[in-house]
Amino acid sequence: MKKSVSVSDSDGHAFTPLVAIELAEDVKEEAVTWLLDRIKDKQQQGGTDLLVDQVPLETQSDQKGNPNVFVVGATWLRLLQGAEEVGLVKEFSDGSMRGFTYANKENFKSFQGDGDGFLSTAECQYIIKHELDTLRAREETHVPGYAQMKLYPGKSIIRRMQSKGILLQIFPLHVKEDLKRLSLSWYQKVKLSYQPLDDIRQYFGESMALYFGFLEYFTIALVPMAFFGIPYYLFDWESYDKYVLFAIFNLVWSTVILEVWKRRSASLAYGWGTLSRKKAFEEPRPGFHGALGLNPVTGREEPVFPYAKRHLRMYLVSVPFVLFCLYLSLHVMMVYFEMEVWALWLHREEPTVWTSLLLYVPSIIYAVVIEVMNRLYRYAAEFLTEWENHRLESSYQNHLVLKVLVFNFLNCFASLFYIAFVMQDIVLLRQSLATLLITSQILNQIMEAFLPYWLQKRRNKKVHKRNQRIMGEKELPLGEQVRLEADMYTYLGTFDDYLELFLLFGYVSLFSCVYPLAAVLVVLNNVTEVYSDALKMCKVFKRPFSEPAADIGVWQLAFETMSVISVVTNCALIGMSPHMKAYFPESETQLILVVVAVEHVLLAFKFFLAFVIPDIPKQIQIKLARLEFQSLEALKKRKMLEAAAGTPSKS
Amino acid sequence: MKKSVSVSDSDGHAFTPLVAIELAEDVKEEAVTWLLDRIKDKQQQGGTDLLVDQVPLETQSDQKGNPNVFVVGATWLRLLQGAEEVGLVKEFSDGSMRGFTYANKENFKSFQGDGDGFLSTAECQYIIKHELDTLRAREETHVPGYAQMKLYPGKSIIRRMQSKGILLQIFPLHVKEDLKRLSLSWYQKVKLSYQPLDDIRQYFGESMALYFGFLEYFTIALVPMAFFGIPYYLFDWESYDKYVLFAIFNLVWSTVILEVWKRRSASLAYGWGTLSRKKAFEEPRPGFHGALGLNPVTGREEPVFPYAKRHLRMYLVSVPFVLFCLYLSLHVMMVYFEMEVWALWLHREEPTVWTSLLLYVPSIIYAVVIEVMNRLYRYAAEFLTEWENHRLESSYQNHLVLKVLVFNFLNCFASLFYIAFVMQDIVLLRQSLATLLITSQILNQIMEAFLPYWLQKRRNKKVHKRNQRIMGEKELPLGEQVRLEADMYTYLGTFDDYLELFLLFGYVSLFSCVYPLAAVLVVLNNVTEVYSDALKMCKVFKRPFSEPAADIGVWQLAFETMSVISVVTNCALIGMSPHMKAYFPESETQLILVVVAVEHVLLAFKFFLAFVIPDIPKQIQIKLARLEFQSLEALKKRKMLEAAAGTPSKS
Repeated sequence: MKKSVSVSDSDGHAFTPLVAIELAEDVKEEAVTWLLDRIKDKQQQGGTDLLVDQVPLETQSDQKGNPNVFVVGATWLRLLQGAEEVGLVKEFSDGSMRGFTYANKENFKSFQGDGDGFLSTAECQYIIKHELDTLRAREETHVPGYAQMKLYPGKSIIRRMQSKGILLQIFPLHVKEDLKRLSLSWYQKVKLSYQPLDDIRQYFGESMALYFGFLEYFTIALVPMAFFGIPYYLFDWESYDKYVLFAIFNLVWSTVILEVWKRRSASLAYGWGTLSRKKAFEEPRPGFHGALGLNPVTGREEPVFPYAKRHLRMYLVSVPFVLFCLYLSLHVMMVYFEMEVWALWLHREEPTVWTSLLLYVPSIIYAVVIEVMNRLYRYAAEFLTEWENHRLESSYQNHLVLKVLVFNFLNCFASLFYIAFVMQDIVLLRQSLATLLITSQILNQIMEAFLPYWLQKRRNKKVHKRNQRIMGEKELPLGEQVRLEADMYTYLGTFDDYLELFLLFGYVSLFSCVYPLAAVLVVLNNVTEVYSDALKMCKVFKRPFSEPAADIGVWQLAFETMSVISVVTNCALIGMSPHMKAYFPESETQLILVVVAVEHVLLAFKFFLAFVIPDIPKQIQIKLARLEFQSLEALKKRKMLEAAAGTPSKS
Repeated sequence: MKKSVSVSDSDGHAFTPLVAIELAEDVKEEAVTWLLDRIKDKQQQGGTDLLVDQVPLETQSDQKGNPNVFVVGATWLRLLQGAEEVGLVKEFSDGSMRGFTYANKENFKSFQGDGDGFLSTAECQYIIKHELDTLRAREETHVPGYAQMKLYPGKSIIRRMQSKGILLQIFPLHVKEDLKRLSLSWYQKVKLSYQPLDDIRQYFGESMALYFGFLEYFTIALVPMAFFGIPYYLFDWESYDKYVLFAIFNLVWSTVILEVWKRRSASLAYGWGTLSRKKAFEEPRPGFHGALGLNPVTGREEPVFPYAKRHLRMYLVSVPFVLFCLYLSLHVMMVYFEMEVWALWLHREEPTVWTSLLLYVPSIIYAVVIEVMNRLYRYAAEFLTEWENHRLESSYQNHLVLKVLVFNFLNCFASLFYIAFVMQDIVLLRQSLATLLITSQILNQIMEAFLPYWLQKRRNKKVHKRNQRIMGEKELPLGEQVRLEADMYTYLGTFDDYLELFLLFGYVSLFSCVYPLAAVLVVLNNVTEVYSDALKMCKVFKRPFSEPAADIGVWQLAFETMSVISVVTNCALIGMSPHMKAYFPESETQLILVVVAVEHVLLAFKFFLAFVIPDIPKQIQIKLARLEFQSLEALKKRKMLEAAAGTPSKS
């Protein structure tokens, strides 16, 4: 951590502001005093022992600002102790990755002198967030000044204030210098090189770095497919045995790349210390509510919500609702195809300019309706998942991802499936695939990065000034900078970014044998995606808190499922081709049996490959085993010493 | 542990003999002395601190016995310390399962007084075996008296002596009283009740108890299938829609029972303390050899064998060999079918008694050849897997299981597949299935339990006497008992027992829709199997060392794979039925497409079910989470206390 800017708290301690807290403008004075005191209290008294200071309002500011903005920091000693508490894993002097302990700090590799630079700002901010999140009520029954904001011993104060809306937001502050250096090496120079993943991880944390790592890996992994695909386009290879070759290459390749990604992500996560990190006990998510009861795990009094009730809500409301939405989406698709037929018929009856324009109307209507349905469904899914009242953030996320994934999959691919397997029109399939792929790519890039960027510019003239200043040399007063950052959009996590990659993967793999050029388009898209995502992270959104992650989680499963489905679709497409039918002129049955057999063999081969390729590279397995062996040996030695000294261990 | 029999070692300590060691008859005196000293040495001096005594030769014995038989025991304190070293998990006073520590011994539930009965004999024997196995060479370069038996620091002495053949065997001793009580409640009374799994576990260890638990569970789980199957047989229901119903019930049921078994095995393993037990560092298997090098994990000097070399052996020799054997087996099958045709033709040409007898000849020859091939292949598989030189016992076992499984699967089911899908003769399929099922069951029971029992009786007249005595009231002198047990067959592990269940599961599930009675036969078989296996464990074989196990390992995967294959075969069988063909009179293509679609839906449903049903019951998840939470809290508290006291922890 670089000590660049520094402020002083009420007791005169100078500290680097790391995290900002914004309270509601009309929050009662006593609640503020109480919260600040609790944050500043020593740990033995149940506080967090952090430093906190109010951010002064800029007097020259033309607009009325919120005075209740605070910055939080900590002494270097406190941060190092916090690093031990959250269980950060760092490189030891012997090259292994070990849980950091304050007592052993000098034995960690990059710990030099007083340890300056040992923790990145992202890590410091993560530590502070963890400490704030685990600031718990003691004997307080409610937030001072707000009798209805109930507290009970052990309840996280910050989460309660957040869910009741008097704490507006907590966010980590940008560090101008680091951001400038990162963006320079990341996206400001157009050059052919890997992304600076380690720097991204230093600044944005492991979860973001894994996303960008996956995006990069996925792009590079698609290059061979794109390479194979180009001659099909250039030389107009319409022969189906060439397509068969391409499809089989694709299927094996997509299995291999997903397996190899697991190994790559394990390597990355090992180097970042998240692979061997012990998972801490997960706190309930802020929105979780229920009757006060005993938590069976912790034995503490806290809200509990019966499993049975949640399961009833899931299976009796959410599942039927999702199924209904899927049905609706299919219905809309059928209406679209009817409209298409009707427009074609109209044009043939009366071929004027107007009716030829009318030919485009169904597609436009369908695209708009799909987009609207997607948005509405997203709100509904969030509402339902919230209502299912999951106790843990991870389980909330999994259920939300599953709901949104299924619907988006259907919306994107249902029409293609219909064209391919009901209409059996390969030419139309190729056309639609190309149209969908290209338009969705362009729309995405606009909606995702450039539109928010432009909107923000329009909404707030100051953004221009700020960007000049943030990227420029001139120092901005702290108050102004914090308030500018507070106004930026909040990044809602990697969900939408992964979803986009997932759908692109679908376009590449599901119908790869009829449109080999898809891989080329996706590669091109991904290259620009890196730049637009990087821009968005650095310029459009607030800095997000770093999230430790050892893998891409549920998305690995989603991509693998897609790759299984693509075996089925590609086999079916090849089986339907006239060229294949020509091989079995006497009996269609024979053809189908052969195709089904090939499909089964391919599926079996996929599972076999996934089984045979180890998920963690041998080198890292050895390193992990070595560490475990050493800790076992150390334990044994300690026990023996204690036994010899006659003081048995209490563990 | 009951202190029933007791002997004294050379220093006059009385101890209960637990484990017997048999050295070669001509072993050199100096090696014996050295080994005994090393065993008796204190732990600080690198010994095991166990008690050991030579078993006296019975003077009245008419045969010349081996004088080099020793019994090993330990003081009660040593055993409790050993329990901590091997990481036994026991029930704590608060009902949770915790790693046993000697210092906390009074806080464990069944620890009363001086702890008598806290450890079962199986556990004591396991501890002693562990200690003996980890008795390592220090500065010795070879076994005294045997210059060519090289040792190096850290090499397990027992394993080296075992692999060089001067240590013949180590085996745990039976405890007559316990054995009598166990066999009484287990198999000597014919009654309808569950097996005493906890007692089996107490006496034979977790791995055996899980096998018998699985056998019992599997039998009970088959009862509904058997129940559904009986009316098909009684009322001669030949209608195929009834078969379809039965098949679909079967497929869903077999998925559900395998998933539920995981939960059941997790419950059992939790109660036995193996679910949450930390895996110790795995030692190289006795037969492992290689050039002396540095182990990358432990950093010790020990034999290493390059991965590349092992992979070359596996992929260039073992895989082609296995494939060749599979081909050979298919070839033999084809010859059998040709012989069948030829015998039928002969009988039709010349219908005499001789030719009608000749009709049975091909089947008999085929059965004999298959049996011979199975045995030969088994030797070859063991030789090859040994030659692949796996470092760990577990990896050796996995590769052996895989090799044997594939070959046995083909041998058992290839002819049925041929009849079903090439000859498409459903009546013959049903006949063959019944014949194979019934004969293999009868043969198995004879070969497995009654034949060894009878052979042993014949080989050794004394067995009769022994059985009378072991089961009788009269005490046998220790020397005679140990030597009688040393003469018993060695139980080679649960492999063959699981293999048998696996093949039976195949008969039930693969072709269930054509022969609903299979489940009935398998249920009947399993009931007798429980008795014959119990008899075999108690009377035919030496007592095996207990093996901690948390699940049935690779067999879970094998059974799940079988259940996936059975979806494919059953769908195909139903699709081939004339009844189904009648539904689609105009087009066979349509029928196949429908069948394939149904198959895919069923497979997807299977994977979905496997994904949705949690592998560990909620109650046990909570218990595990609670323990983890408590240990995290304890760690945090200790750290905070240490921080307050100014003495940071060294961990």
